[in-house]
Amino acid sequence: MRGDGRRANQLRPLEILVDYLEQPFGSVLYSQGKTRVLCTASLDEGVPRWLRDSGRGWLTAEYSMLPASTGERTQREASAGKQKGRTVEIQRLIGRALRSVADLEALGERTLWIDCDVLQADGGTRCAAISGAWVAAARALGRAGLSRALREPVAAVSLGIVGGELLLDLDYHEDSSAEVDLNLVMTGSGRLVEVQATAERAPFDRDGLDSLLDLGEAGIAAIRHAQEAALDAAP
Amino acid sequence: MRGDGRRANQLRPLEILVDYLEQPFGSVLYSQGKTRVLCTASLDEGVPRWLRDSGRGWLTAEYSMLPASTGERTQREASAGKQKGRTVEIQRLIGRALRSVADLEALGERTLWIDCDVLQADGGTRCAAISGAWVAAARALGRAGLSRALREPVAAVSLGIVGGELLLDLDYHEDSSAEVDLNLVMTGSGRLVEVQATAERAPFDRDGLDSLLDLGEAGIAAIRHAQEAALDAAP
Amino acid sequence: MRGDGRRANQLRPLEILVDYLEQPFGSVLYSQGKTRVLCTASLDEGVPRWLRDSGRGWLTAEYSMLPASTGERTQREASAGKQKGRTVEIQRLIGRALRSVADLEALGERTLWIDCDVLQADGGTRCAAISGAWVAAARALGRAGLSRALREPVAAVSLGIVGGELLLDLDYHEDSSAEVDLNLVMTGSGRLVEVQATAERAPFDRDGLDSLLDLGEAGIAAIRHAQEAALDAAP
Amino acid sequence: MRGDGRRANQLRPLEILVDYLEQPFGSVLYSQGKTRVLCTASLDEGVPRWLRDSGRGWLTAEYSMLPASTGERTQREASAGKQKGRTVEIQRLIGRALRSVADLEALGERTLWIDCDVLQADGGTRCAAISGAWVAAARALGRAGLSRALREPVAAVSLGIVGGELLLDLDYHEDSSAEVDLNLVMTGSGRLVEVQATAERAPFDRDGLDSLLDLGEAGIAAIRHAQEAALDAAP
Amino acid sequence: MRGDGRRANQLRPLEILVDYLEQPFGSVLYSQGKTRVLCTASLDEGVPRWLRDSGRGWLTAEYSMLPASTGERTQREASAGKQKGRTVEIQRLIGRALRSVADLEALGERTLWIDCDVLQADGGTRCAAISGAWVAAARALGRAGLSRALREPVAAVSLGIVGGELLLDLDYHEDSSAEVDLNLVMTGSGRLVEVQATAERAPFDRDGLDSLLDLGEAGIAAIRHAQEAALDAAP
Amino acid sequence: MRGDGRRANQLRPLEILVDYLEQPFGSVLYSQGKTRVLCTASLDEGVPRWLRDSGRGWLTAEYSMLPASTGERTQREASAGKQKGRTVEIQRLIGRALRSVADLEALGERTLWIDCDVLQADGGTRCAAISGAWVAAARALGRAGLSRALREPVAAVSLGIVGGELLLDLDYHEDSSAEVDLNLVMTGSGRLVEVQATAERAPFDRDGLDSLLDLGEAGIAAIRHAQEAALDAAP
Repeated sequence: MRGDGRRANQLRPLEILVDYLEQPFGSVLYSQGKTRVLCTASLDEGVPRWLRDSGRGWLTAEYSMLPASTGERTQREASAGKQKGRTVEIQRLIGRALRSVADLEALGERTLWIDCDVLQADGGTRCAAISGAWVAAARALGRAGLSRALREPVAAVSLGIVGGELLLDLDYHEDSSAEVDLNLVMTGSGRLVEVQATAERAPFDRDGLDSLLDLGEAGIAAIRHAQEAALDAAP
Repeated sequence: MRGDGRRANQLRPLEILVDYLEQPFGSVLYSQGKTRVLCTASLDEGVPRWLRDSGRGWLTAEYSMLPASTGERTQREASAGKQKGRTVEIQRLIGRALRSVADLEALGERTLWIDCDVLQADGGTRCAAISGAWVAAARALGRAGLSRALREPVAAVSLGIVGGELLLDLDYHEDSSAEVDLNLVMTGSGRLVEVQATAERAPFDRDGLDSLLDLGEAGIAAIRHAQEAALDAAP
Repeated sequence: MRGDGRRANQLRPLEILVDYLEQPFGSVLYSQGKTRVLCTASLDEGVPRWLRDSGRGWLTAEYSMLPASTGERTQREASAGKQKGRTVEIQRLIGRALRSVADLEALGERTLWIDCDVLQADGGTRCAAISGAWVAAARALGRAGLSRALREPVAAVSLGIVGGELLLDLDYHEDSSAEVDLNLVMTGSGRLVEVQATAERAPFDRDGLDSLLDLGEAGIAAIRHAQEAALDAAP
Repeated sequence: MRGDGRRANQLRPLEILVDYLEQPFGSVLYSQGKTRVLCTASLDEGVPRWLRDSGRGWLTAEYSMLPASTGERTQREASAGKQKGRTVEIQRLIGRALRSVADLEALGERTLWIDCDVLQADGGTRCAAISGAWVAAARALGRAGLSRALREPVAAVSLGIVGGELLLDLDYHEDSSAEVDLNLVMTGSGRLVEVQATAERAPFDRDGLDSLLDLGEAGIAAIRHAQEAALDAAP
Repeated sequence: MRGDGRRANQLRPLEILVDYLEQPFGSVLYSQGKTRVLCTASLDEGVPRWLRDSGRGWLTAEYSMLPASTGERTQREASAGKQKGRTVEIQRLIGRALRSVADLEALGERTLWIDCDVLQADGGTRCAAISGAWVAAARALGRAGLSRALREPVAAVSLGIVGGELLLDLDYHEDSSAEVDLNLVMTGSGRLVEVQATAERAPFDRDGLDSLLDLGEAGIAAIRHAQEAALDAAP
Repeated sequence: MRGDGRRANQLRPLEILVDYLEQPFGSVLYSQGKTRVLCTASLDEGVPRWLRDSGRGWLTAEYSMLPASTGERTQREASAGKQKGRTVEIQRLIGRALRSVADLEALGERTLWIDCDVLQADGGTRCAAISGAWVAAARALGRAGLSRALREPVAAVSLGIVGGELLLDLDYHEDSSAEVDLNLVMTGSGRLVEVQATAERAPFDRDGLDSLLDLGEAGIAAIRHAQEAALDAAP
């Protein structure tokens, strides 16, 4: 049993508040255990210069952790004057994940901005950001009559090998001591979008990778269910 | 009657959620109408270099608006690589307001970081940030056994002259068309900490300033009451 | 009696050299005691993007202290790579003060750049910058046949409560020990443009604020007189 | 058959020049087809602040593409004033890959700087950088009598699904049209260090991932052989 | 005859106001024709890290043009966030010139900061900065009882070939159309410190260079005389 | 005799590899002793904004030292976020040198980007960069049918007075102890483009300057010969 009483293959409790804010087209407060991410999707007319007159739209993502979202306050990137490498890496991942299910021709010459701001961080923030961002994007595009610009859902979950055990949905404490860390992004139809497996402490073998992917598929299915339920419940 | 049905001297509904996050010493989700600010107070051992070995502590504040907090998405300062002038001005005001009621000797050689992140902006964000930050600071210091480092409460409210009428607690729409704009910061004992009156469209006279200050004092008293109630209700 | 022999309600000696430089449209070396600010006003064709085709002009201000203007050399902001928060706050104040008396329709689609560079700092530099900048702006617009783009004069003065006494026009030494600090900006017609009162050491009350405003009004009248005299004396 | 006549499972020709420069401890000009990366490893006494007095060393990597390394000149990051997101992501990957086989206790309180500068880019630059960097690191540590600070070799290769076919070691042309892109990092003992599979155009399934991993393992073995041969041939 | 009536070998009128400011150790308002530079020299205890405990001091220079110093306003570097290449090049030249006559052992572990801020620019600002900075440095060191830290005077002048004619001390108009541009820095004892000759429009020959150097030597002698006279006249 | 056995007036061995890379229009690996610079010339359609519709082209240069090019690793400018003063100064010199022999009208509205990246630094890198860049530029323009855009060759060499002796083509060790340092840029027709003589340790006299220029002219002639031979040998 894990520190919080979960089984190895159990997700933390999910809570997905749709339309958390009143202003943007799509806003979602996505909680997975103590990890809490505010995901918004804002639609702008126009595209970056290199796409003008192409008939295609663009989707891009930004990610940030509020200074007090972590146990010890972290420095605010805006006052440091630059984004950290980790931030850049994560926001590129979120953008790729969402674009993998987007139909940019159907979007037309518009830009969909995804913003994921972590209010509280307890592990798995990049995966929570992806899962929440899809709901926000679906909501924003639905309201704008552009639902066809998302081909299907996308969700993500983190996994790892900790003390030799394969665990689904690591919290911060588990993540800090994991030997292997896997971020898995999959579509609603059960296909792979991104597999990022990293040896944090020791190299791993193909069997371990396979078992992690099996475990992750089951977790993603549960997240997918919660995403749909949240959207259905929204007015 | 105003757009949202309020009387000229009426505040928007206040909601003050204490301990909104689990991790930092003090966290408050402060809502005043649609304006919603997450205020946190984190205590660090140590002080900036120029205060070392002085026996005195330091209190400083940072402010940010999430990109989607406004009706139209605004650029993220961390990706722009610098804070805007407005941000810098506001966070300096928040810091001064809190320091005016802090006893930095009593704080000892520690730094209290105030972070105010606007989740949704509908006018009056800098004043909401101050009112919320005081609650977060009181909570953080209380938990750390340092309550004596805050001498008394502080709160703030914005006011203005709009279409010739004196209005308390402007929302974004009212603020955009105000002739005169006043940000008022006062202590719990009813004394002035900061008066910032600005002619946005037309210079004003001493009578107008006096009437605004009267109106503001009443508003501050109500906010003070809500601050105390929120703190009392916290466990 | 004050350190330099002044009475509490006495300004430092004013010297306003109009057309100090030969090149820009308007240039003024403004001295108030030892505080010495070079204020220039340069007129550019064109406006920022967000004003194009609006028929309106723009006025903006920048402020800087030369590294050696203070008793101890301060770091040059250009080599630090960013402007300090204090600088940003001051240049926004100067811009608002000048715009409060500008008629931007009458200016047409032009930009008036105000630059205030402090050659020697002995307190009150932001107020000196405003008072000097108005003379430079009036001169620049007069030469360009655009005098109608300034509706009336504007001037500023700093005041404070020091050791319980109300003092007009603080020098650096007085400013460093003030309990309350007030920056007052008023128009030629005696109306208020900006009131910024700050409790530096102790909160203050309405009576103190009222007395400071009375004292400031008298000081502003004297500065107004010197501004007019300097302009009249210019060729 | 592929554009350059290779079979699907064939690497491009490898050339590994050890001690390409005279000055640093380890320098390698690593060519894989037209992709050419200068990898250097420099040993500094001392570690970053957060490792001081820990008895452990540090290894960190930086990556850059020379402006003219690509078909069309790309902007120099030093003159743009910041590294691009792609650069940051790649240099973090290189660092992680090398640290996965490093024994930082054995390194002692020293820092090993890995620099990978792409002279000519034709696809697979991040994998070439890892494979070359290991040789440079081994050389630098060997010369310093610190060979024990590398536990075993590490190498990397890129693969993809292009037009439905699984291809090893993509060149730029193939990479631009790949449906799926996989960067694989493995140790000399055949274990996995990093698996980064990304759906560039269409999600993929587990079978595809498995076949790519099989193909990659064979490619890595060949690169491993070349790395050893190059080191052995060095004086 | 030149535009302003000067002969080819004639300097513009020099005016050197010593102790122009009251605060820093040395301050000089140096005017050469319409070019006007405020040069200050401030002495700090301590040296950069790489000189600590060496017993030697350091001398460094910074240069800036006020935005309105030129005919058309130029952007303020502090608000652009970086110094221009030209600025960097000039301040390095000023520093080298002054260091060439400094005795850094005699200075002891102190730093002499030279700041040259151009109030009005009409050609030759870098040379005027050097000539003025020497006076400011001599004054600052004299007051601090460190006169021995300057071995001898240094001065600079610009020259050029304009329309085939060799001219001393170019103004902006002449400089803009010069075929060859020479900045010459010499010591009081008539030796060379820096010769920077640049073909702006057409390569030049040794004879041209020789004649320019002859012309420059005479000009420097006159500047040297004015520097001494200004220092002698100071109290 | 010098450390490496050269006579005082002897260049280090030159090696000029034309078309070192396959992609850019012109690429040259230029070696002078251990100093090794990769020079590329890339042609872009279009010019900077201030030259649009002028019918004229532009030529600009950038310079960088790879972190491991020096004996001790130097910090990467891209990760520091700004170019050092020395870098800026050198790339401005390279640009001026090449422009002095360019016919920008003949270039048409195109930009020729010169990139000089130092792979290994052993003194004289800025001069090597100029000599190599001319070959790369000639090659790029030749291939584009724009040979007429270069009027004639240009080359550069460094010289110095070391221990009282006049030496041609200083290596790093000699450069570090030089009393006088001269960078000389000359055209193929033997005229001067740039003379930068600097007293590093002691002021110098006209005789010394003359002797250095004589020595430099001979060195430049030899470099000119090698440049031509390399170009002629290219396919």
